Amino acid sequence: MSTFGTLFRVTTYGESHCASVGAIIDGCPPGLELSPADIQVQLTRRRPGQSNLTTPRNEKDLVQLQSGLEHGVTLGTPIGLLVKNEDQRPHDYTETDLYPRPSHADYTYLEKYGVKASSGGGRSSARETIGRVAAGAIAEKYLKLVYGIEIVAFVSSVGKVHLPSSHAPPSLVPSDDNEDNDDVHDALSPEFRTLLSTITREEVDKYMTRCPHPETSEKMTKRIIRAKEAQDSIGGTVTCVIRNVPSGLGEPVFDKFEATLAHAMLSIPATKAFEIGSGFKGTEVPGSKHNDPFVRREDGRLGTTTNWSGGVQGGITNGEDIYFRIGFKSPATISQPQDTAQYNGTPGSLAAKGRHDPCVVPRAVPIVEAMAAIVVMDQLLIQNSRKSAASLLPPITTLPPTMILPKSN
Amino acid sequence: MSTFGTLFRVTTYGESHCASVGAIIDGCPPGLELSPADIQVQLTRRRPGQSNLTTPRNEKDLVQLQSGLEHGVTLGTPIGLLVKNEDQRPHDYTETDLYPRPSHADYTYLEKYGVKASSGGGRSSARETIGRVAAGAIAEKYLKLVYGIEIVAFVSSVGKVHLPSSHAPPSLVPSDDNEDNDDVHDALSPEFRTLLSTITREEVDKYMTRCPHPETSEKMTKRIIRAKEAQDSIGGTVTCVIRNVPSGLGEPVFDKFEATLAHAMLSIPATKAFEIGSGFKGTEVPGSKHNDPFVRREDGRLGTTTNWSGGVQGGITNGEDIYFRIGFKSPATISQPQDTAQYNGTPGSLAAKGRHDPCVVPRAVPIVEAMAAIVVMDQLLIQNSRKSAASLLPPITTLPPTMILPKSN
Amino acid sequence: MSTFGTLFRVTTYGESHCASVGAIIDGCPPGLELSPADIQVQLTRRRPGQSNLTTPRNEKDLVQLQSGLEHGVTLGTPIGLLVKNEDQRPHDYTETDLYPRPSHADYTYLEKYGVKASSGGGRSSARETIGRVAAGAIAEKYLKLVYGIEIVAFVSSVGKVHLPSSHAPPSLVPSDDNEDNDDVHDALSPEFRTLLSTITREEVDKYMTRCPHPETSEKMTKRIIRAKEAQDSIGGTVTCVIRNVPSGLGEPVFDKFEATLAHAMLSIPATKAFEIGSGFKGTEVPGSKHNDPFVRREDGRLGTTTNWSGGVQGGITNGEDIYFRIGFKSPATISQPQDTAQYNGTPGSLAAKGRHDPCVVPRAVPIVEAMAAIVVMDQLLIQNSRKSAASLLPPITTLPPTMILPKSN
Amino acid sequence: MSTFGTLFRVTTYGESHCASVGAIIDGCPPGLELSPADIQVQLTRRRPGQSNLTTPRNEKDLVQLQSGLEHGVTLGTPIGLLVKNEDQRPHDYTETDLYPRPSHADYTYLEKYGVKASSGGGRSSARETIGRVAAGAIAEKYLKLVYGIEIVAFVSSVGKVHLPSSHAPPSLVPSDDNEDNDDVHDALSPEFRTLLSTITREEVDKYMTRCPHPETSEKMTKRIIRAKEAQDSIGGTVTCVIRNVPSGLGEPVFDKFEATLAHAMLSIPATKAFEIGSGFKGTEVPGSKHNDPFVRREDGRLGTTTNWSGGVQGGITNGEDIYFRIGFKSPATISQPQDTAQYNGTPGSLAAKGRHDPCVVPRAVPIVEAMAAIVVMDQLLIQNSRKSAASLLPPITTLPPTMILPKSN
Repeated sequence: MSTFGTLFRVTTYGESHCASVGAIIDGCPPGLELSPADIQVQLTRRRPGQSNLTTPRNEKDLVQLQSGLEHGVTLGTPIGLLVKNEDQRPHDYTETDLYPRPSHADYTYLEKYGVKASSGGGRSSARETIGRVAAGAIAEKYLKLVYGIEIVAFVSSVGKVHLPSSHAPPSLVPSDDNEDNDDVHDALSPEFRTLLSTITREEVDKYMTRCPHPETSEKMTKRIIRAKEAQDSIGGTVTCVIRNVPSGLGEPVFDKFEATLAHAMLSIPATKAFEIGSGFKGTEVPGSKHNDPFVRREDGRLGTTTNWSGGVQGGITNGEDIYFRIGFKSPATISQPQDTAQYNGTPGSLAAKGRHDPCVVPRAVPIVEAMAAIVVMDQLLIQNSRKSAASLLPPITTLPPTMILPKSN
Repeated sequence: MSTFGTLFRVTTYGESHCASVGAIIDGCPPGLELSPADIQVQLTRRRPGQSNLTTPRNEKDLVQLQSGLEHGVTLGTPIGLLVKNEDQRPHDYTETDLYPRPSHADYTYLEKYGVKASSGGGRSSARETIGRVAAGAIAEKYLKLVYGIEIVAFVSSVGKVHLPSSHAPPSLVPSDDNEDNDDVHDALSPEFRTLLSTITREEVDKYMTRCPHPETSEKMTKRIIRAKEAQDSIGGTVTCVIRNVPSGLGEPVFDKFEATLAHAMLSIPATKAFEIGSGFKGTEVPGSKHNDPFVRREDGRLGTTTNWSGGVQGGITNGEDIYFRIGFKSPATISQPQDTAQYNGTPGSLAAKGRHDPCVVPRAVPIVEAMAAIVVMDQLLIQNSRKSAASLLPPITTLPPTMILPKSN
Repeated sequence: MSTFGTLFRVTTYGESHCASVGAIIDGCPPGLELSPADIQVQLTRRRPGQSNLTTPRNEKDLVQLQSGLEHGVTLGTPIGLLVKNEDQRPHDYTETDLYPRPSHADYTYLEKYGVKASSGGGRSSARETIGRVAAGAIAEKYLKLVYGIEIVAFVSSVGKVHLPSSHAPPSLVPSDDNEDNDDVHDALSPEFRTLLSTITREEVDKYMTRCPHPETSEKMTKRIIRAKEAQDSIGGTVTCVIRNVPSGLGEPVFDKFEATLAHAMLSIPATKAFEIGSGFKGTEVPGSKHNDPFVRREDGRLGTTTNWSGGVQGGITNGEDIYFRIGFKSPATISQPQDTAQYNGTPGSLAAKGRHDPCVVPRAVPIVEAMAAIVVMDQLLIQNSRKSAASLLPPITTLPPTMILPKSN
Repeated sequence: MSTFGTLFRVTTYGESHCASVGAIIDGCPPGLELSPADIQVQLTRRRPGQSNLTTPRNEKDLVQLQSGLEHGVTLGTPIGLLVKNEDQRPHDYTETDLYPRPSHADYTYLEKYGVKASSGGGRSSARETIGRVAAGAIAEKYLKLVYGIEIVAFVSSVGKVHLPSSHAPPSLVPSDDNEDNDDVHDALSPEFRTLLSTITREEVDKYMTRCPHPETSEKMTKRIIRAKEAQDSIGGTVTCVIRNVPSGLGEPVFDKFEATLAHAMLSIPATKAFEIGSGFKGTEVPGSKHNDPFVRREDGRLGTTTNWSGGVQGGITNGEDIYFRIGFKSPATISQPQDTAQYNGTPGSLAAKGRHDPCVVPRAVPIVEAMAAIVVMDQLLIQNSRKSAASLLPPITTLPPTMILPKSN
């Protein structure tokens, strides 16, 4: 349904042509200094009309905080917020009243609810994600302030245009045809490791495509323009890194960190795939080369020399960088004619009018960051509760020392 | 935590060396005829010791139903069940008391809980999945009986040994280096479509690898044997198809069908990746070729000619086959020595003793099927509630007919 | 937290001096014709300033629907709604900045959150209930339209002024001092039974006190005026009846109908007590006189001749009228001086300025009705899912007929 | 359904004639030393056959821990436990196959599920509470060890036999007929205050009735014997006190402390009423006399001189003793003949055979304590999470000091 999270709980409402879209964020820690600007910055990164790579629908998407704060400080009570839909015109009659757009949500929403919004896909509208982005910005403010957690997403492919293999985990294994060749690239490549540990939003935003690699970004731009000019669309992938997450987050067995993260990511419109760490390609690597050896870090704690695990082992964070990749399909709404059928089954050709994004991945970047922040925040609050409860217990007397974490840790 | 689902709710307990593992299944429809054999068949497919490709740990894993049935009929009350751990010996002292196994859950469990099971990874043990498999078998019994729903998973790769590209969605796009070549294989290939629509568990089980393609299975067997002999391990992927699912399942915006499915799948031990339909590779295909055109089916309802969407659009099932793929990493526990560090940071070499699976994907097949069944069952119960509630309302008078689903549907 | 319900899910936000208060209602059945007027009528019954028995704070409390409807029909997606706070003046400095009001939420909110709203009690403000009342009105619209369910609450006592014993379940047992006297009034009294089965909101609203008994209402009015003039306050009770609820609602073992109902009622500000059916007084009656004998009703189904159970047996509705009573304490905020201590412990005297209700029960009536509607709606959706799922199963062959409900039922 | 709690989560299974009853307790803090004896003591207090006041059904009810511990220390993973049903005989044919017992769950279970257990009421059996009692004992162990929290319940009335008014909150207000007399007994009476602050389980268990007042207990015994001899039954009330609960527990607005507590209590079989603090009777007292004035306590923190609030204000605990009262109706199953109707509507007379409790309140005492412990534990874990999260934030700079809790608190 439209609520996500256990202790940090986000509930959203709104579709594209109603009065407003918004959210209620429940469980935000009290005493956090928070301004509308903290939220607006991510809404602005998400909003349409930012470049000629996105939809010309142009909305300012100004957030209006309704509750949960006084004097710019959170009270611990629910934060209500909304963004007006500037474009509330009743949806004009178009061919999409007769035709469900292929691969869009028009048909399935009608099947599910028996009625549909005049705009077709109802809550599958990208405007639904505004509430998520606002909620994520609030979580991020806390995570950064208290833990120094940094969440940065960027575009890693558009169509067939990928970051060079040196920068991408899916290319860890040589693509030869020798199934008995166990050679593995130095995992992760130094370039990719550097990218993960240093990339910033400022750097990402230097590129209209949000791909922080000049040559690749240029090719991506061309690829998107080509789709746009052909009244077509194209998909892509977004990679995201979360730095400085404490170890111990994730709730086995069903709410493992990556399970909850995948849930969050695949709830974003147009997503079809998720992988963490070495992902699909890593399944080709033998354990002896895929395992991340432990090593004592400078602070005395254990770290790993490699990080194929993507910061999560056994469903629980281990303190290393968490990185993952999400696949976004080509947008379903395209203006070129498509042979398909009407709701009543009559065959015909549909050419969807309107303003569409030829490629969603650049605008998906802040949405991915938001959902990542919400997941980390919620898992952190749950684990903090356990840790705090356990810390009050007297020392354990009956367990062998090898079964106990030294208190200094 | 250890509960999954809203109306069909599964809660599990147990680790590898305790008295038993088990589950409580709450919300099963009353009046379902159910025997222990219905459950045992999948537990037996999951249990260790089935072939020389799996761990020699040999347990019969006989289910003991505790409650929720009389005369072999479900009462609608919680079904308690358990499987005894035959091997409850206190864990022997081994090197893993000093060393966290690289990429295993030993370290993160200790970080999370401050204590750890003597066996190391606690609930990350594969035995934890017994409760899931039992719960899934109950869901399946209902789904098959009432809707004719069929769920079949099979192994689609081991290491670099993949099903031929004709049989696999990740190979939909030619792997040339021409980023401007929009050519696409006929999606999905006829071979893969046939495989999806006809594959049965009986066919899958003819192969020790559970890969229903003789040549590929033979290569996979060799690959697993090679890992075993090298005291190493290897990963792989499992593909699963769900047939005959009604349209309308999935709860936007956060509990979209694929989001919940991904959550379920990535909660299975050793999983690192999930994709539905055309998945990552599909992101390379332009919308004009990726969209699934609608067509009137023989029963008068709409279907799609292609099915790149994998049976889900806008987070809601559309009635087509649902297919998805999960990546399992190489098992972390290997017997060959690994350079790593002890819990206290001291560098050293660890050679894990014991009985390990060199490759988990053959035994993962029934676990994937079980989690799929649980997700479908829960989403079905939720959507049935909505449909039933809406069907009792008087006809809508104020909406344009194009916004309403004809009652005959 | 601020979300209630499983399938019909209400999330609220807002406190007394922020921009607005509101709610998101998720899970409303699609296809329901719903107008702002359907909601406004109950908000208006709840709003302050209705008579000289309530607070002079006068707000129109006009609801603004944000989403989830088109052309006055619900889409099945979340309904966002809000009511502006007309009085958003920053809270003036008063003595309550120094003093926590005795028995108010000032102190506990500060203890809980570490910060507090300038108004003191934060979300304990009565304005918080606006979102509940709106959500309840939506649920009621459905329940009435489809099931003919009627929910009517009324004031049954103010201070020591009670409805005559003939009208009230707490007086079922004679108040003599003979502990061995098992005599019981004819349960329920004909007058009370008639009241339960016929009372309407129109009738209730004829009385400023919302007590539909002229003599008692007059005494209550005097009692409230007396409290007001003494700058004091007084408590009371509200009785509520729900008619025409289908049998089978309630989810054992933890979410029994009355457990969920009690949860809902005791979440209303100022409540301290809840009883269903014969309640506390009924515990004094032996089983032989307290049990409700079954009888065949005109429609061929079973009913009960008495209804001490209050429509619920074993945590599940039995089709009879559901009636229950809630105790509201005297409002904590009074203007007469009170000897107490400041936040820092300094003793002193507090006389709270401002506009207060001397008695909350008249305005509590629509809030009680709203929470009752939300509970019934949610339980109905859950039970409908089960019933619909079970109805699709083939006939049971292995159970003795006495264990099966005939299909005709 | 059969799961209760958010972070400390209890799921139960089992009815009276199945193989076993049991529970899974998820979210127990790791590192707690826990033995079967810690649990057994409360199970033994709950079990039948303890005296001639209870059912002669005699079961030892020995708990078998299945998981979640090693060397007597909790691992933080789910604790599975079960108690065998010694009496698993298939239910003999009796008249109750034809007749639903009046006011029992037989009829409503059949209406709800369409099938029923041969024993009739299915999960409404008192054996269902075994899992709750076990779970509560685990929570209690933690609460006592870390916070010194003490939970003691006792019987406060049987039929018309009540603790003397000096010992009971319902008698706070003189029962005169003068509605304008605002006189109030010294609230709470010194005797009752002393009882609340000193009563122990050892003291309670000195009395077969579990009413710790010799004269009253003797009368209660006679009352129960009289019911037993008449093949009848009688109800009663249980009062419970929770001492040393930290301030700040309870989650407004829907999960206020008393709302969750009422939910828990009214989920216990046979309960019909709940009140906290001064309860129903307190509604008759004007605010000026009902408000609890603040005073600086010896430890420098604020306390209240009276405690009509029962330890909860605004839905949040204030650090004072929490006390509440629950009404249990007379057991529905009685052996004397009752005029009623068969399932098919045929009128007739039912005399239920078998072993029944003539009065449930003595055995209800440990069940009430268990549910109280579960509620406190869950709310504590949630509040600890918030407190821990807020404590890590930098000092607030923009709020007036009167809005902030000094850190020393």
